[in-house]
Amino acid sequence: MIKVGIAGYGVIGQRLADGVALQKDMELVGIADIAPTLSIRALAERGMPYDLYLVDGADKEAFDKLGIKTAGSFDDLVSKVDVMLDSAPGGVGIKNKEVYKAKGVKAVFQGGEKDEVADVFFHGYANYDAGVDQQFLKLTSCNTTGLIRAVDCLDKLVGLDRVAITIVRRVADPGDYHRGLTNALLVDKAPSHQAVDLMSIMPHIEATGILVHTPVTHGHFITVVANGKEKITKEMAIKAFKDHDRIRVVRLEDGFLGNASLFRYGRDLGRPHGDLYEIAIWEDTIVETGDGIMFGLHIPQESVTIPETIDAIRAAAGMQKDGKEGVAETNKYLNLPSWKK
Amino acid sequence: MIKVGIAGYGVIGQRLADGVALQKDMELVGIADIAPTLSIRALAERGMPYDLYLVDGADKEAFDKLGIKTAGSFDDLVSKVDVMLDSAPGGVGIKNKEVYKAKGVKAVFQGGEKDEVADVFFHGYANYDAGVDQQFLKLTSCNTTGLIRAVDCLDKLVGLDRVAITIVRRVADPGDYHRGLTNALLVDKAPSHQAVDLMSIMPHIEATGILVHTPVTHGHFITVVANGKEKITKEMAIKAFKDHDRIRVVRLEDGFLGNASLFRYGRDLGRPHGDLYEIAIWEDTIVETGDGIMFGLHIPQESVTIPETIDAIRAAAGMQKDGKEGVAETNKYLNLPSWKK
Amino acid sequence: MIKVGIAGYGVIGQRLADGVALQKDMELVGIADIAPTLSIRALAERGMPYDLYLVDGADKEAFDKLGIKTAGSFDDLVSKVDVMLDSAPGGVGIKNKEVYKAKGVKAVFQGGEKDEVADVFFHGYANYDAGVDQQFLKLTSCNTTGLIRAVDCLDKLVGLDRVAITIVRRVADPGDYHRGLTNALLVDKAPSHQAVDLMSIMPHIEATGILVHTPVTHGHFITVVANGKEKITKEMAIKAFKDHDRIRVVRLEDGFLGNASLFRYGRDLGRPHGDLYEIAIWEDTIVETGDGIMFGLHIPQESVTIPETIDAIRAAAGMQKDGKEGVAETNKYLNLPSWKK
Amino acid sequence: MIKVGIAGYGVIGQRLADGVALQKDMELVGIADIAPTLSIRALAERGMPYDLYLVDGADKEAFDKLGIKTAGSFDDLVSKVDVMLDSAPGGVGIKNKEVYKAKGVKAVFQGGEKDEVADVFFHGYANYDAGVDQQFLKLTSCNTTGLIRAVDCLDKLVGLDRVAITIVRRVADPGDYHRGLTNALLVDKAPSHQAVDLMSIMPHIEATGILVHTPVTHGHFITVVANGKEKITKEMAIKAFKDHDRIRVVRLEDGFLGNASLFRYGRDLGRPHGDLYEIAIWEDTIVETGDGIMFGLHIPQESVTIPETIDAIRAAAGMQKDGKEGVAETNKYLNLPSWKK
Repeated sequence: MIKVGIAGYGVIGQRLADGVALQKDMELVGIADIAPTLSIRALAERGMPYDLYLVDGADKEAFDKLGIKTAGSFDDLVSKVDVMLDSAPGGVGIKNKEVYKAKGVKAVFQGGEKDEVADVFFHGYANYDAGVDQQFLKLTSCNTTGLIRAVDCLDKLVGLDRVAITIVRRVADPGDYHRGLTNALLVDKAPSHQAVDLMSIMPHIEATGILVHTPVTHGHFITVVANGKEKITKEMAIKAFKDHDRIRVVRLEDGFLGNASLFRYGRDLGRPHGDLYEIAIWEDTIVETGDGIMFGLHIPQESVTIPETIDAIRAAAGMQKDGKEGVAETNKYLNLPSWKK
Repeated sequence: MIKVGIAGYGVIGQRLADGVALQKDMELVGIADIAPTLSIRALAERGMPYDLYLVDGADKEAFDKLGIKTAGSFDDLVSKVDVMLDSAPGGVGIKNKEVYKAKGVKAVFQGGEKDEVADVFFHGYANYDAGVDQQFLKLTSCNTTGLIRAVDCLDKLVGLDRVAITIVRRVADPGDYHRGLTNALLVDKAPSHQAVDLMSIMPHIEATGILVHTPVTHGHFITVVANGKEKITKEMAIKAFKDHDRIRVVRLEDGFLGNASLFRYGRDLGRPHGDLYEIAIWEDTIVETGDGIMFGLHIPQESVTIPETIDAIRAAAGMQKDGKEGVAETNKYLNLPSWKK
Repeated sequence: MIKVGIAGYGVIGQRLADGVALQKDMELVGIADIAPTLSIRALAERGMPYDLYLVDGADKEAFDKLGIKTAGSFDDLVSKVDVMLDSAPGGVGIKNKEVYKAKGVKAVFQGGEKDEVADVFFHGYANYDAGVDQQFLKLTSCNTTGLIRAVDCLDKLVGLDRVAITIVRRVADPGDYHRGLTNALLVDKAPSHQAVDLMSIMPHIEATGILVHTPVTHGHFITVVANGKEKITKEMAIKAFKDHDRIRVVRLEDGFLGNASLFRYGRDLGRPHGDLYEIAIWEDTIVETGDGIMFGLHIPQESVTIPETIDAIRAAAGMQKDGKEGVAETNKYLNLPSWKK
Repeated sequence: MIKVGIAGYGVIGQRLADGVALQKDMELVGIADIAPTLSIRALAERGMPYDLYLVDGADKEAFDKLGIKTAGSFDDLVSKVDVMLDSAPGGVGIKNKEVYKAKGVKAVFQGGEKDEVADVFFHGYANYDAGVDQQFLKLTSCNTTGLIRAVDCLDKLVGLDRVAITIVRRVADPGDYHRGLTNALLVDKAPSHQAVDLMSIMPHIEATGILVHTPVTHGHFITVVANGKEKITKEMAIKAFKDHDRIRVVRLEDGFLGNASLFRYGRDLGRPHGDLYEIAIWEDTIVETGDGIMFGLHIPQESVTIPETIDAIRAAAGMQKDGKEGVAETNKYLNLPSWKK
């Protein structure tokens, strides 16, 4: 059993914990955080299903006063695990890395951390091999992770030359107040970093894109114009997307009218936190353009990187040396393909 | 075991089903709906934990094609139960009532249905007695139900003469597209129906209020100015609210910054759909005004009426003749007081 | 002096009135409407700078009671003019057309009216010739009108083969309550009608696109991926856009951070209603993709069609037979190129 | 002719400039700012109707490069005027005060500046006398300024004892990106500072209140529960509000459905920037509660303080020693009462 710890129990950290807890070949040793945040308070109200370790600078008394049991220090946690998932705020992970190094522990960082923290940018489907037996991996951001699923899917189908993406970015998560936007679309300098990051994972593709922030909290929407080495028809694209375990093909006529439908659907499914792990592609948006194809997809920003992060544990720890086997195990424990039957 | 059925499996119907399923002294016989909506699709993807009955006019073939098993007709469902919870769209419940009458079944309607559908307006805390052994009960709306919890709590404390409320209404539920509002506050004619409805449950109080719609999806915010027969201090109010099982007293400094924090907290707690059943009152908003008191509260509109609806089953079916006992049973099975210890 | 009347004094009608009033070679005879709407009340409060005619079914007494002077019937207005601008609600224009026919008057319809209302789809820059001396013209929608400015500009530069657009549509105008959207992105079936409409004006280009509605009120944002007969560099595109009278090239570093900056800038400029007639293209969004170019543009939906509608008067009435001369006159009176010096 | 200068040409500064320019007994000498912001660029595009002075630290070259003419330094401006209106960002005004002191110039500060900057908190209607011949005045915030109009109006009618307010605050101005809020209501610690500030102007009234931030940009909405020394009927309140020059009484049935209607109406009126100077009170929201009265009002946050700021010039400079005369002059030049006839 591979032992896993989690640093930073925020939006992503909570979901990593729940995802790892579902993997029957992994043991979640515990999570580490610094303050009795709402997430920690919710964990306590749930009866502390995961052990809590305190990072340096944490005010233990504050936890004691609330009756929240702690299991030791950050060092204690790192000493007990094989792999740390680091979802601490950007800039903290790079400091934590020194602890991981000292203890000889492997670590997987989230997209918000500085690039230099890792030996390799990782994506379960697109470059699993590159992560096998490596010590420090870094996921791409939520947008890039989800986007690559779709791009890699078409790339495996016909070989892609070029993609041009438009990212309609949700500006805040549900529960955020500090980074909101009110009645405005905010434009970023192009090319968007997601297009640039895609090329770090898939260097054979020329990618560019424009990003605009929108005042919503439920999921990014991305349009992709993809040009391949041969013509891609709408039918080919639909079939390839439907065959992918981490892509849902949805339709307007079924009630999936936009990103809020998917958010609601995840809650109605009863998954932890109401999360979807899959991106969704609207069948109704797929159109041919020249020999290429254009389509629109949904990224559930809070949870989309969970499967690929678990893939990264498998790769880094050498649990499965082959990518197909690795992602299949992750999918099985997250119960991903079941909905398709 | 009291047998319960649910008509209409939408936002409220789903939550009623989950809430009834938790009551160990009730049996959820099944739910009824007309079309393979997203809610029904999610139920199917969950493996059909509840039996599905089809109402008149349903296209059974559409369900068959999707492989969704059905258990019979609406009539079949009504024939098998003691109490129906009717959360069908407004106007449908009053037609369903004819079926309930014909079968001699009791029914509890939601706030959206016409008033004349019921013998009595019901609120678990404020007028349980009025519902005991009655055939047709109607809940107040989500706003009124939550509001009455707080008003009744102070009324039991000192006796209230008068309340003036301001409702900052969330305009749509997560997943809605058809009744949105963009960058606008929409004003209603005063007095708001919630103030008027409150008086139907608590006729000894003079209530009035103003309602303004706001473009958010997470919970109504209400301010209450309450004048009592004697002075209410801030300390008295806090204590009374803290002692109430369906009220959470929250604080800004703990991270409950607004309605989105409560929505997020519900998801983090892992309750079904991420729901909260409790209203929340911000300790930081409680201020004295003259001899009265002013405070601000949060209504989780999707789930707040679930406990009182279950209370209504208990009253109508005579499971508990005493209100305190009735609500205590509901609270126990919904696991409501646990968070306070 | 060409005499002009306006049917329908709503968001567009008001702006047409103000735009026509600025044209020194046209006379605005009056406007027609049916009820004392807010727009009409504002006109009255301004002292009735334009004469008001009442359409059939209007309640003259309601106007009288408010002290709003009227100048006659819709028929009276049509009898006095050479060209009617019809900005009545969709479906009304096609009935009004019978009156125009009977009186032998020319008419220009807005994009919301049914296509069959007109002999020709019109765009001042892209197909002025087609409208010369025609009786019934129809503008394209606000999105399409603005989009074609940019596409036509590049088409004149190198000849375009293909465009793929992503429309991030503002869902409501400031002042709207009935078609809002709250915390949701709503997806449309592709291809978007704007791409299809573009081909009706520019049939030599293959156009497709995806549209997503966003909860904002200030301006649509569109990304365009354009492929030409020869390579388009970023510099070529910037120069061509800067040379266009109805395109502003803006930059993030100058403070144009998104669509709300442009809305504010229009108000600060002191134009009527705070309107911008120009689309804006962010220099920072222009990126090369293959031999093509990608860029992002802003459409001020309330006012963007005003210049092309005035062009349409010039074409239909034969005031200028040549497109370049026609649009130059419109631009001069709207004071469009001045800001560039 | 009283000579006036303006420090800080942002949202408020622009409107002060336009408001002062309309006063026939004042001369606007010029405005001062530090950088070529969008507001300054718009001023330049308008042809520099006001002279621009540069504050210390301004990069004159940046202005020169854009061809924007400047007229001198901040010191130069202060030297030429009798009264400065200081609408610089909070914290800057208190430094500017040293310059005003040194030059013996009077100054009126906006609500965002620290309280200690001024000798007196000023409100044209409620305490004009306190400002007469004073050197340093400070306006209350936009919310408080508008609120006091309504409260003072009732106070003059029957004498008020107590008010309890609920502020539904718009969170950002049109054009803001940095302080937005997305799908969330953010709660403030009570009592709101607006209630506290009201008492600084009207110390004989006990005021308290709760404030909640909402994701809209057009105008605050406030409900007021007011208790007087004698009963206030709905009719009395309507009459008093209608008689006030800076209050509009509006109705839902006339099309004023919410705050966005008023924003749109201001634009349709053709006032500078599309601004309203008046607050609006919905006749439909006025309800009696006990012997008191409850009502809802709209605050146009960008422009509401302009009239009272101009009153403050009149008071400080001793142009009119009597409040009624002072505000009447301001109203006349702003053309305020005209709409009522």
